[in-house]
Amino acid sequence: MKEIMAIIRMNMVEKTKEALLKGGNPAITCLKVLGRGRQKVDFSMIEDYIPNLMDQKMAEELSEIHRLISKRLIIILAKDEDVKEIVDEIIEVNRTGNPGDGKIFVINIADAMRIRTEETGDMAI
Amino acid sequence: MKEIMAIIRMNMVEKTKEALLKGGNPAITCLKVLGRGRQKVDFSMIEDYIPNLMDQKMAEELSEIHRLISKRLIIILAKDEDVKEIVDEIIEVNRTGNPGDGKIFVINIADAMRIRTEETGDMAI
Amino acid sequence: MKEIMAIIRMNMVEKTKEALLKGGNPAITCLKVLGRGRQKVDFSMIEDYIPNLMDQKMAEELSEIHRLISKRLIIILAKDEDVKEIVDEIIEVNRTGNPGDGKIFVINIADAMRIRTEETGDMAI
Repeated sequence: MKEIMAIIRMNMVEKTKEALLKGGNPAITCLKVLGRGRQKVDFSMIEDYIPNLMDQKMAEELSEIHRLISKRLIIILAKDEDVKEIVDEIIEVNRTGNPGDGKIFVINIADAMRIRTEETGDMAI
Repeated sequence: MKEIMAIIRMNMVEKTKEALLKGGNPAITCLKVLGRGRQKVDFSMIEDYIPNLMDQKMAEELSEIHRLISKRLIIILAKDEDVKEIVDEIIEVNRTGNPGDGKIFVINIADAMRIRTEETGDMAI
Repeated sequence: MKEIMAIIRMNMVEKTKEALLKGGNPAITCLKVLGRGRQKVDFSMIEDYIPNLMDQKMAEELSEIHRLISKRLIIILAKDEDVKEIVDEIIEVNRTGNPGDGKIFVINIADAMRIRTEETGDMAI
């Protein structure tokens, strides 16, 4: 079992949810986060940032201090054999080719349980 | 060492906190998340959702699009030998038998540190 | 590859961001969380809590129920060889010697991908 964590653009959550649902993987958990990547933020290329930061001068200053911008972290629990399909679905929906598309990382789960039924392992996913 | 992550109902945080405290495991981190499971949401069975969604027609529509609902993600760091007890406490408090009771997953921690004392490993838990 | 998770004081995020940036590790994700550690909260020592809780009587009551207080969870993805440096930077900035300085835990990442380029492994960090 794996935990798939994807940090994506704020405005990509709906599309990602839909793609995962169509792919047969509806279960998802979504968190509001603030983040920055390795590159300085180029605010001229970002459409989903706070509107009152659009002033060019302020944007330049923010760019210099690597300001955190609003992102979404989605968590998906998956059986090992479904990880590649889910990752590919996330990439297909979220890839614009611009910096800020986000990252996906995959972590091994030692054990999983569904609280209602006390099913464990793959049955709980 | 393990990271125990539990996705539970919004209104179960207080009871879960109390149960863990009584069990001798007070340390907990709690996050607001939005989530959906594998099943379509049956809003007639959910008591902890946003009140203005109670209209039946709207609830049915939401059910059809697998809308995300407000949940809580709790994170607990535990020594290996304490994991079963903590998981059992979480299940006992959170199990109602209805869909939406949530999930628990357990992840291995490679290393842990307490910032104040720089203790590592089990001493930091 | 590792996921470094640090639970720190709310008012330490900026300093931590700056320290990591200077150390050449700008990429960071930050989440609002509520938490408590193993010790009862001593509100007389806490500067970063909600102002209207400063009343002594209320603080004592809260202390007794192990109230959760506002913290920040930061997530950093790192190559194995960079983990020690990043952890040391976080400790240096966040260590005040008082309870509530927080914890760091490190988790193995099975796989990582940058969505924009589809780079994987260390290249995606």
